[in-house]
Amino acid sequence: MERHKIHQKIDSEHQRTLDELFDLLCFPTISAQPEHAIDLVRTAEWLQQYCEKIGFKTTLLQTKNAPPVVCAEFCSSPEKPTLLIYGHYDVQPIDPIEEWLTPPFSPVIQDGMIYARGVSDDKGQFFSVLKAAEAIISFRGSLPLNIKIVIEGEEEIVSAHFEELLTSHTDIFQADLILIMDAGQYTRGIPALTYGLRGLCYFQIDIQGPAYDVHSGQYGGGVPNPIQALMTILNRLKTDDGKITIPGFYDTVLEPEPWERQEMATLPFEREQIKNSLGIKTVQNEKGYTPLESMTVRPTLDVCGIWGGYSGPGSKTIIPARCGAKVSMRLVPNQSPGEIASLFKQYIETIAPQEVDIHIQVLPGIEPLLTNPHQPLFQAFSRAISQNFDRPPVLIRGGGSVGVANLLKRILKTEAICMTGWGCPDDGIHSPNEHFSVNDFFRGIHAFIDFLLEYARIFDTR
Amino acid sequence: MERHKIHQKIDSEHQRTLDELFDLLCFPTISAQPEHAIDLVRTAEWLQQYCEKIGFKTTLLQTKNAPPVVCAEFCSSPEKPTLLIYGHYDVQPIDPIEEWLTPPFSPVIQDGMIYARGVSDDKGQFFSVLKAAEAIISFRGSLPLNIKIVIEGEEEIVSAHFEELLTSHTDIFQADLILIMDAGQYTRGIPALTYGLRGLCYFQIDIQGPAYDVHSGQYGGGVPNPIQALMTILNRLKTDDGKITIPGFYDTVLEPEPWERQEMATLPFEREQIKNSLGIKTVQNEKGYTPLESMTVRPTLDVCGIWGGYSGPGSKTIIPARCGAKVSMRLVPNQSPGEIASLFKQYIETIAPQEVDIHIQVLPGIEPLLTNPHQPLFQAFSRAISQNFDRPPVLIRGGGSVGVANLLKRILKTEAICMTGWGCPDDGIHSPNEHFSVNDFFRGIHAFIDFLLEYARIFDTR
Repeated sequence: MERHKIHQKIDSEHQRTLDELFDLLCFPTISAQPEHAIDLVRTAEWLQQYCEKIGFKTTLLQTKNAPPVVCAEFCSSPEKPTLLIYGHYDVQPIDPIEEWLTPPFSPVIQDGMIYARGVSDDKGQFFSVLKAAEAIISFRGSLPLNIKIVIEGEEEIVSAHFEELLTSHTDIFQADLILIMDAGQYTRGIPALTYGLRGLCYFQIDIQGPAYDVHSGQYGGGVPNPIQALMTILNRLKTDDGKITIPGFYDTVLEPEPWERQEMATLPFEREQIKNSLGIKTVQNEKGYTPLESMTVRPTLDVCGIWGGYSGPGSKTIIPARCGAKVSMRLVPNQSPGEIASLFKQYIETIAPQEVDIHIQVLPGIEPLLTNPHQPLFQAFSRAISQNFDRPPVLIRGGGSVGVANLLKRILKTEAICMTGWGCPDDGIHSPNEHFSVNDFFRGIHAFIDFLLEYARIFDTR
Repeated sequence: MERHKIHQKIDSEHQRTLDELFDLLCFPTISAQPEHAIDLVRTAEWLQQYCEKIGFKTTLLQTKNAPPVVCAEFCSSPEKPTLLIYGHYDVQPIDPIEEWLTPPFSPVIQDGMIYARGVSDDKGQFFSVLKAAEAIISFRGSLPLNIKIVIEGEEEIVSAHFEELLTSHTDIFQADLILIMDAGQYTRGIPALTYGLRGLCYFQIDIQGPAYDVHSGQYGGGVPNPIQALMTILNRLKTDDGKITIPGFYDTVLEPEPWERQEMATLPFEREQIKNSLGIKTVQNEKGYTPLESMTVRPTLDVCGIWGGYSGPGSKTIIPARCGAKVSMRLVPNQSPGEIASLFKQYIETIAPQEVDIHIQVLPGIEPLLTNPHQPLFQAFSRAISQNFDRPPVLIRGGGSVGVANLLKRILKTEAICMTGWGCPDDGIHSPNEHFSVNDFFRGIHAFIDFLLEYARIFDTR
């Protein structure tokens, strides 16, 4: 059996595979910090060489001073479908550094977990795909599909230049299938395939009261307080039971399908574990929906920040000159950030107190994403994962927004997009002591091998 | 006529009087800035010497490292009533220094105005009293009343040590009548006697949501947002038309007397001038009360500051861990800060969302002040001012809170307390280019001479 021998090869190279991953993890690729620019370049070059070594043709795409995007391509045959795999080699900052139990860029294994910044988000995830491709190529000299690999270095800083590169080099990215290797398991032990994401709409509200802070004794009772106006506005965005009050907000919301609600109902929801890990008293839900539904398939509105007046120690008795707030909404299919922004601005105009000046700034939004999970891409993955993770993956929709997923789907004009990965929600991505299961890393390599073989089989027997 | 000759003496010493005031104005007595500690001490010594020179017995009272309080006493006769006069020699900081047209501690006269930091608040005001006393003493060797002068150096930093000194040296301060020389005219050309002040109640609200900022995509819809809770609380403190909703808040509020409302109705209220100078679109009022009433004899509630979450550029999609607000209330007779604080805390408990942790901190409050203006102290002042300012003073209540006024009234156990001064609301106190009318400074000296003679006459003919 060819499949069996490819798997054996992976198992026989266990230590070398880990050593290579550790080499990759040692690069401090913090994209948010300019002093690491050279580390990002070195990592891109390391990845380029790695891809060349295992048989890919490579290009480093670069714009302005942004870190390079590593593009690698293995063309087996023009007759075969092309799969584009997305990952990112940049990582989050490491502070608070004092909370790390081991140095973030000196990977170690403890109790079956690799500890290092970026191991789960996203180096360990996309590297599993490279290792799988390497194993197949070394065994049969080719791959069952054409594969394009795109690994960027700005995901943690909103993929600032990705759209520009994607638009100007669409040919390099062109593909039939898209795999975003930046999602993960539903919870430890329950692998998942993600077929939907929420979108984003983001506003800044600035309110101007008096030209300067005025004395609250001298003027209190006579001068309109901008914070009072802000409270009035923010408080009218939702009802007490959490429904968003912007007229028309829910008009285009796609209700989850019955099968989706059934699927979600079968998933474990660790309410107590969430409460304990976040230190909250209760997990909320939108009326008529479970907490999981509320956090993934229903739209939300949250105030992300407020400011204005005095916030130092003790008392300062002023009516402040100005104040403001940041408001984010998570959108669901088929809401559009542009339409919601219009509705929001219209609504604010109707509820805004007239005695102050209000300015609304619309910040960049992200379209929600939804694809059909009942397609060969998902079927092949589901089977491949079942063979390696002791159980089939669950189909889920994510609560967050991944800008590149939409970009790729829209610009490459394909509905065949799937998001997955082997990381878990409690891996501590973006937090100290980020970690990733050694076992899941290797199970992921095996699963990806099986996915390629399985998808090719489905494709060939059409 | 003795009175006439005393007045002539003042007029004949016009330049010397200004020179002395200028000497006092040159001291940079910024109490908020530790590097000026030595300037505060030097000024206290300068004032002590000045008081000694004109015939007073003096003491410098000091506690800890606070600037000294200058205490000066002229005892004419144990049979006569004793008047305590309060002023302060410290001044506000000078920033933004670039907006000053002349150096703040190099006084100059332009268009009949003296420009210098502290000239209106409060050096020019209390110095007018010293000059009046000096003139009478130099003419008749004594004063019509016993006079105690108290000039502190911490008024601009909430008179931090004044209560301690007043309590431990009550005998030094003991008096029958109190004059606070730190108020002013109602508006330029309309002198005023202030017989009431609003009090203050101040709170800090801190709300804790999740233990750390969490991702609004991952958790939005499920995790309670502390800002949402803060909005709910702050928005329920007032109705849309501005009434404060704390149960019992208005129970002890003393309605203004019909004569007070009549007096206020006769006062000019420069709505357009206030709008223009503050850059606001409208001047508000509590329903059923004029703007002036709303700003002086009615209680208010203002949010003085809010904070929480992200306030930097662009968007950050979080549900913040914590947020907070500062809330101040101006109280009127007979509200008590202690009772209002209890009502506030009880009310917050009833309206507070249960899903977050809320902490209320009560900051130091100030009792409102009200005295009877139909008493000899006011009658004598009214007549004295009428003789020198082309019109009688108006009786007003101030919207702000003066902690020392209450302290003196309470600890010295007298109802005979009056607040006045010759400064105007547009003198720019606490702002760049603070100024004070030369003419009003001299009219003030004359008025205080006449007040002393008039009060003694009333006292002697009881």
